[in-house]
Amino acid sequence: MGKITYLGIPGSFSFIAAQKYFGRKIAMLSSNTIKDVFKHLANKRADYGVVPVENSTTGSILETYDQLLESKLSISGEIILKIHHQLLVHKKQTNITSLKTVYSHPQAILQCENFLSNYPALTPAFTSDTASAAEIIAKRNKSAEAAISGNEAAEIYGLKILAKNIEDNKNNFTRFVVISRQRNQTGNKISLAFSIAHVPGSLFRTLKAYAENNLNLTKIESRPVFGKPWEYIFFIDFEIRPNQKKQLKLTLTEMKENCRFINILGRYQKGKIYET
Amino acid sequence: MGKITYLGIPGSFSFIAAQKYFGRKIAMLSSNTIKDVFKHLANKRADYGVVPVENSTTGSILETYDQLLESKLSISGEIILKIHHQLLVHKKQTNITSLKTVYSHPQAILQCENFLSNYPALTPAFTSDTASAAEIIAKRNKSAEAAISGNEAAEIYGLKILAKNIEDNKNNFTRFVVISRQRNQTGNKISLAFSIAHVPGSLFRTLKAYAENNLNLTKIESRPVFGKPWEYIFFIDFEIRPNQKKQLKLTLTEMKENCRFINILGRYQKGKIYET
Repeated sequence: MGKITYLGIPGSFSFIAAQKYFGRKIAMLSSNTIKDVFKHLANKRADYGVVPVENSTTGSILETYDQLLESKLSISGEIILKIHHQLLVHKKQTNITSLKTVYSHPQAILQCENFLSNYPALTPAFTSDTASAAEIIAKRNKSAEAAISGNEAAEIYGLKILAKNIEDNKNNFTRFVVISRQRNQTGNKISLAFSIAHVPGSLFRTLKAYAENNLNLTKIESRPVFGKPWEYIFFIDFEIRPNQKKQLKLTLTEMKENCRFINILGRYQKGKIYET
Repeated sequence: MGKITYLGIPGSFSFIAAQKYFGRKIAMLSSNTIKDVFKHLANKRADYGVVPVENSTTGSILETYDQLLESKLSISGEIILKIHHQLLVHKKQTNITSLKTVYSHPQAILQCENFLSNYPALTPAFTSDTASAAEIIAKRNKSAEAAISGNEAAEIYGLKILAKNIEDNKNNFTRFVVISRQRNQTGNKISLAFSIAHVPGSLFRTLKAYAENNLNLTKIESRPVFGKPWEYIFFIDFEIRPNQKKQLKLTLTEMKENCRFINILGRYQKGKIYET
């Protein structure tokens, strides 16, 4: 299997996604940034990488798309996590009202706004990510401090869950992709990027090929290059059945006539949804 | 003119966008969250709101789209800011190597990674937004503390710019929208949301109407409802010339046959780009 690198420290959502996909008995390498995940793969310090690509409440993670466009690596798998937030405390702490500080990423604090509004004495302190919040309070070992983080972080850093699933939005999903140096030739989903001339109907003509060949788009996103109003990059995902080999070929041929560039980001099997 | 509410505290990017659009002599009301901006407008505590809607490196701000979908408010204007980050210190501080802590939002710290790597002794401390970082170091008044924030924050909180434009990416733009209770009937740009049946070609038939009527799309984004694989919402922006009234009507009529719902989020004049 080789080594897996992922975004963040043990207990991060990318770490959890990697374990759901590859199992718990794998060698793991932490990466500080999405860029570092790609760097570790390019330098062969790891064989697979796991990074977030899309969140249902905050949208696409453009840094992942940037790295995919710049590198020769490609997507070889997909994992979807249903995100839950837990209030973690030290094992002896039992009283939520005696807590003074809650550490987490600003986004996670915002996502637990309703819960936190019941405890006005609890002051937020911000960290770079949710797993770090658990690590920090474990290290500091002060009983009045809590962290908003995940189940796995509780286990890894020896903390207790004092309040469970405290997120306001119960439908918060993050989609992760598995990145590798090898290019998959099979799988029921393809991600690609392309750019077209900014004239009325040019996007339409490109998508016509998909419609005519019965390739079902599951995502489409345009990314403007601000300050260059005529430059656009589009990202699409589409489903493909084993018997659609010919249709794929026809679609790509048609696209080549309308697009300035086409970059196949990867072919892979549609991901399962896991609870965190 | 009335009162303008915006995301964040004085010096925030939404605050700057509001001043670029409405001028500096307006009455301003700070809002903690995007949701609060919409609430203040609905409750008539303010007449216009300014919130971010898209960033060139992090993508669409889905919370703004959610609020637009849920509320009866609509987009009446647009502003684009080119984002620069400044290293702010106390007025007597002149020596960058004597700094120990740098406060900012995790995203801003990440965006100044190259600059910060030259000063390994400088430890990051995280805040909920960049303007708060300036406010915090001004209040704490400790000479070894710095903030990564904007030009305006330096002025507002009485700080000095020790290093200018320290961001790694020199092409970081954020698009803001002006929100109001009134619905504009003119303007050269329209934003709308729609949902379609998830069958091959349904998106294609919808976009065909735009192509045939020469309405030029400048943005398209699909938003999946995770866990409900057949439900999609699309967000599009398109340009419209004064003589395209009939084409708009034809397009909307055509859309009504293909879409489960159509929500016109607003009509407005394309925004100018300002430096921060």
